[in-house]
Amino acid sequence: MTRIDSIPSRRWRRLSWLLSHALTTAGVVAMVLGTSPDVDVRFDDILGNVILAVAAVLAAVFIVRLWGAAARRRPHQYLASSKGMVDLACAVALPLGWALVPDPHDARLFALVWTLRYISHANGLSLFWRVMVRSRIALLSIAGLFVVVTLTAATLAHVFERAAQPQAFGSIERTLWWAIATLTTTGYGDVVPTTIWGRLLAGWVMVGGIVMFALHAGIIATAFAEELQRRHFLRTWELVVSVPLFRDLGAAAVADIVRLLQSRDVEAGAVVMRKGDPGDTMYFIVSGEATVHIAPKPVVLGPGNFFGEMSLLFGGPRTATVVATKPSVLLVLDIADLHDLAGRRPEFVNLIETEARLRRDRNGGTADDDDGIRD
Amino acid sequence: MTRIDSIPSRRWRRLSWLLSHALTTAGVVAMVLGTSPDVDVRFDDILGNVILAVAAVLAAVFIVRLWGAAARRRPHQYLASSKGMVDLACAVALPLGWALVPDPHDARLFALVWTLRYISHANGLSLFWRVMVRSRIALLSIAGLFVVVTLTAATLAHVFERAAQPQAFGSIERTLWWAIATLTTTGYGDVVPTTIWGRLLAGWVMVGGIVMFALHAGIIATAFAEELQRRHFLRTWELVVSVPLFRDLGAAAVADIVRLLQSRDVEAGAVVMRKGDPGDTMYFIVSGEATVHIAPKPVVLGPGNFFGEMSLLFGGPRTATVVATKPSVLLVLDIADLHDLAGRRPEFVNLIETEARLRRDRNGGTADDDDGIRD
Amino acid sequence: MTRIDSIPSRRWRRLSWLLSHALTTAGVVAMVLGTSPDVDVRFDDILGNVILAVAAVLAAVFIVRLWGAAARRRPHQYLASSKGMVDLACAVALPLGWALVPDPHDARLFALVWTLRYISHANGLSLFWRVMVRSRIALLSIAGLFVVVTLTAATLAHVFERAAQPQAFGSIERTLWWAIATLTTTGYGDVVPTTIWGRLLAGWVMVGGIVMFALHAGIIATAFAEELQRRHFLRTWELVVSVPLFRDLGAAAVADIVRLLQSRDVEAGAVVMRKGDPGDTMYFIVSGEATVHIAPKPVVLGPGNFFGEMSLLFGGPRTATVVATKPSVLLVLDIADLHDLAGRRPEFVNLIETEARLRRDRNGGTADDDDGIRD
Amino acid sequence: MTRIDSIPSRRWRRLSWLLSHALTTAGVVAMVLGTSPDVDVRFDDILGNVILAVAAVLAAVFIVRLWGAAARRRPHQYLASSKGMVDLACAVALPLGWALVPDPHDARLFALVWTLRYISHANGLSLFWRVMVRSRIALLSIAGLFVVVTLTAATLAHVFERAAQPQAFGSIERTLWWAIATLTTTGYGDVVPTTIWGRLLAGWVMVGGIVMFALHAGIIATAFAEELQRRHFLRTWELVVSVPLFRDLGAAAVADIVRLLQSRDVEAGAVVMRKGDPGDTMYFIVSGEATVHIAPKPVVLGPGNFFGEMSLLFGGPRTATVVATKPSVLLVLDIADLHDLAGRRPEFVNLIETEARLRRDRNGGTADDDDGIRD
Repeated sequence: MTRIDSIPSRRWRRLSWLLSHALTTAGVVAMVLGTSPDVDVRFDDILGNVILAVAAVLAAVFIVRLWGAAARRRPHQYLASSKGMVDLACAVALPLGWALVPDPHDARLFALVWTLRYISHANGLSLFWRVMVRSRIALLSIAGLFVVVTLTAATLAHVFERAAQPQAFGSIERTLWWAIATLTTTGYGDVVPTTIWGRLLAGWVMVGGIVMFALHAGIIATAFAEELQRRHFLRTWELVVSVPLFRDLGAAAVADIVRLLQSRDVEAGAVVMRKGDPGDTMYFIVSGEATVHIAPKPVVLGPGNFFGEMSLLFGGPRTATVVATKPSVLLVLDIADLHDLAGRRPEFVNLIETEARLRRDRNGGTADDDDGIRD
Repeated sequence: MTRIDSIPSRRWRRLSWLLSHALTTAGVVAMVLGTSPDVDVRFDDILGNVILAVAAVLAAVFIVRLWGAAARRRPHQYLASSKGMVDLACAVALPLGWALVPDPHDARLFALVWTLRYISHANGLSLFWRVMVRSRIALLSIAGLFVVVTLTAATLAHVFERAAQPQAFGSIERTLWWAIATLTTTGYGDVVPTTIWGRLLAGWVMVGGIVMFALHAGIIATAFAEELQRRHFLRTWELVVSVPLFRDLGAAAVADIVRLLQSRDVEAGAVVMRKGDPGDTMYFIVSGEATVHIAPKPVVLGPGNFFGEMSLLFGGPRTATVVATKPSVLLVLDIADLHDLAGRRPEFVNLIETEARLRRDRNGGTADDDDGIRD
Repeated sequence: MTRIDSIPSRRWRRLSWLLSHALTTAGVVAMVLGTSPDVDVRFDDILGNVILAVAAVLAAVFIVRLWGAAARRRPHQYLASSKGMVDLACAVALPLGWALVPDPHDARLFALVWTLRYISHANGLSLFWRVMVRSRIALLSIAGLFVVVTLTAATLAHVFERAAQPQAFGSIERTLWWAIATLTTTGYGDVVPTTIWGRLLAGWVMVGGIVMFALHAGIIATAFAEELQRRHFLRTWELVVSVPLFRDLGAAAVADIVRLLQSRDVEAGAVVMRKGDPGDTMYFIVSGEATVHIAPKPVVLGPGNFFGEMSLLFGGPRTATVVATKPSVLLVLDIADLHDLAGRRPEFVNLIETEARLRRDRNGGTADDDDGIRD
Repeated sequence: MTRIDSIPSRRWRRLSWLLSHALTTAGVVAMVLGTSPDVDVRFDDILGNVILAVAAVLAAVFIVRLWGAAARRRPHQYLASSKGMVDLACAVALPLGWALVPDPHDARLFALVWTLRYISHANGLSLFWRVMVRSRIALLSIAGLFVVVTLTAATLAHVFERAAQPQAFGSIERTLWWAIATLTTTGYGDVVPTTIWGRLLAGWVMVGGIVMFALHAGIIATAFAEELQRRHFLRTWELVVSVPLFRDLGAAAVADIVRLLQSRDVEAGAVVMRKGDPGDTMYFIVSGEATVHIAPKPVVLGPGNFFGEMSLLFGGPRTATVVATKPSVLLVLDIADLHDLAGRRPEFVNLIETEARLRRDRNGGTADDDDGIRD
């Protein structure tokens, strides 16, 4: 159960991601333009055909995937997954429009459902979902408070303003429109209190809107920060434990280090670091291959090796250029975090120094720096 | 003094919560619609009767509860509690309206008080209250700053704009309306400076509004995050210490683990995990019962047992389906948090492994995974 | 250099604080109303006299304080302090207005300076100042970004809209008005783009405004949270080290505990806890005196004693009522934080148990609970 | 590779920073005023000449720098750096305008490019860049959600309102204008729904806007806080390890202390602390020189020395005035943080006490306090 994909499969997925989004965007743009009186007359047929084509492709995608799932004897699982449900909705949207709405131009509006594809393929949706579920109690409390404040503001504004502006403030129902536009600080200005009491009330409602806003931001920000940290930890942890060097450190040190590492994908041929540049990061190779271009002959590093540590440990600019010779996954450690680790995990820095010395002895002087160690 | 409620009492409370809120909502909606000139004529009697009925029920609720409290010889305690005060206010609201306001339609507006029930029954109110009290010094400082900035903006705008717009900016009193709508970034646009100096001032006021907003958000978000963390800690702590497994770990480890666990209620018959699914959580049973459907014969787990640990410890999908056979309260531990714990509390993972091995030996191969351990 | 004030001096300061603010408010309200055409005619003399009276008092306050500082031979120190500068500004404001402005009604507007008193007497001002100074680099970076984005938006809007709306978008100077109202999401709506490109630009500017807003909020919130935590730590630290019980714990434990304690002032006669109530806090007496009303005879506790620990350690409701018999300063420890401490600082809970046992033996059964300990 | 600059070079850089910004500002202001119909007629030649002059200086700056880089044989490096790219863009902007745009007044608008200089010279740009890159996944997810919500809101509003307001809501294309102004809570108010369904939708969109806003703020605030902390750590770490006193403490303690120190530059002759003032900070000298004015004869302190510790350790006001006799870089430790450190790092406080005693013995009674130690 490894999630460390090879680079070629990643590139392919990126392409299919782009194609899928281009398709969705084409369909949605055609739907939007199709409603415009300026564009409609001349391009109506083209737009209609684009929408039809996208609908056909989306229906085909759904059928192929369902077929594939049925072949693996789990069509139910596919249909119950969020991906399957979005595929189904996209395939069904336009036919449903034709069935329900007599005007074919209005039926096209059902293509709006396709925008679900923008959020279903990212893991954004599940992220938001978890954040909402985790902070549901606080958010519900705020929603209750919001309802009470809105209704109170609307009732009071109705009482204060109904004599002066019977049209806009004549019923609480209508006053709610003003209350919500004010409490969210949107402030359209189409309905505005004019009496002194109405304005005093409006002042309080605006300030209340800011505070409500701040409460929302506070709750969601807190939950979001936690969730993001959790995700980053998980993803990096899998990469870190696949590097033997880290495994020797013990679980406590690994948990510590995982928080500080960032993963980075590089293509074959990419220059990871260049001789003479200031150096403030070091790299661990998870998969792939990198070549260090140094004096006697270039050194090839593979999974589990690291480079760039000399600039961090002893200061000074990079003393060698490092090029990825295969598509590689790297873990990046920042100089600030290395200093931090040096305090809490001195064994980690020792390990890196020892490894660097061993490697140099084996190769007769390598890594990205000779002089730093010889002194 | 245990707060770990059994599931049936929870279900009952949820029903009564729904009924209570439906009642309040019916009354408030009738009140709102009753002010509308479009609806009023035809349904006025119905709406009036709905309001009367809700008022009667709320009065009855108050009397019954006061009676009950008196029977337990503590009517004062009930009346002094926030619940009692809300009940009293709801019971008294409409009669007070009739007494104070001659027009019976206007008297109905007092039904607004009933919305207090939306926030009194949740613990949202006390949460907000604590947040406000904790950050009162900072909030008061901002309120002071807000008053000073608003008054300064209003005075300067009065000076700059009174010649150009004597109606809107003729007195500071009126200019305050513009100042507050601008400082809260509501921006109705009904009153807008037109001179160059007035506009320069308005630009600063808008930016000042954003900063003030940010200060609010910062203070409240900080206080909120702390308070929520504290509440979660308390609620989970009570559940955790009721599981013998955790009690053996010592107070320090318990405090550590409590932060990472989430409680979850499941109904009888609910499938907690399904064979073949990817596994990223494990479960501890606080109360209730769960059945693990594995090869020789199903295994029944009770309070203090746990399941789902194999997918976390050794990777791979779920190897058994687990169904709750009674309504249960579970504690959920996430894979990210288990990795984290493994570093800081290795004894915890050892304990889980040992327990799992013991249980398997007793049952002749159980938990949710045979193979994982035999290898 | 102790900052632990006795309660009477606090009460006196609170009264003088109220009087000072009432005075300022009276003056400022008179100034605001004095500009109103509705009020002016009838009450003009009264308002003028109120302003004069407040100005006289403020001038007198400044002279008395300067005199007092001169008597202690440090008038320069007083004039250089923020308090002295505000006093001077308030005393000089109105005379300066009379000297500079010919119209006496306009001269009154200088009374706006008095609002500085709202923020000078709280420590709010220094708090904001520190927050701004600490995050000055980030805030300046944002200010730079804000200027660049505003200018770019204004220039582009000028290019896109000048043909359609020469009045509002004819020069960048005028377009800036639209740009800033949009970027701060104020949205007056008095100037609105109408061309397709102008609207596309406006959409980006609005979204940019939200992001800029979020950056502000993020920076300030972070700096604020740190600063508040720092202040709370300092204030509580002084109280904690004045309690002998805590001093015995060693500096590391004290630093830990300080974070969790809240200080609270109670008046003489206040009921701190009531028999039968649920108990989720315990109290340490810093100064003052409290009486525990228990069976044989009430027990009097003084500085350094604590009470309410039984409900926390063993659960159950309060078993005694505790009344403050002198104005007291208490430190409050929450049940959530005690559980947390029990993990990290077991010696602290042992200390409390030992102390409670000792005290009971001395008094022949006291604290707030007999039974809890005898078992 | 030390970044601890001497004060004179700092002063020079500050001057050149001011000059550079004054130049940019002059050019940009001339460009803005040049578009104004009120100003144009009289000052057009002057404004044109200012713009020409600034363009000439900026072109010269670019050529000189390119020349210098070529002399050091790295012109490519300069052109590839962000600084070089901004210099190039500024030098090329106006000529490009003349080449592309026929109207010379419009060509001047290209001077807008010069505003890039506001953000290129600060490290603000790289800060924002890192924040955006770090939180790119979350921000992209929100962007997707934003697109979906905006399109959905626009389509529904189009359906609800097209009959009532064919001009503003006749096509989704036009409705998008309303949707985005509402979702960002800008609320121009030029297009407003009037039907009951349109208003209900608008209410949800406004609330959705607040939540989206809060999500943005949450993500960016979290990423920002982390990045700022990282930068502060790095900058202070370099200063701290250059002080011998700290180096003796070991890496773990240094990492701890770095978080709590603030760096401060003082000019020669500046009074760092004054006798009789309350003391809540102590200072470490990184570079420069400070003189302690105490009784027998003043004591001169150099790099590695510290002062002001007595007020922190024993309370009481400052007992001596300290003046910087050379431009100095100081590290400031706050009283709150010292208390905190005393718990976690008692060896640090011991070190300071020992050092202070040694220094006093050597000088025959010095530091900023004699009495405190003699007792």
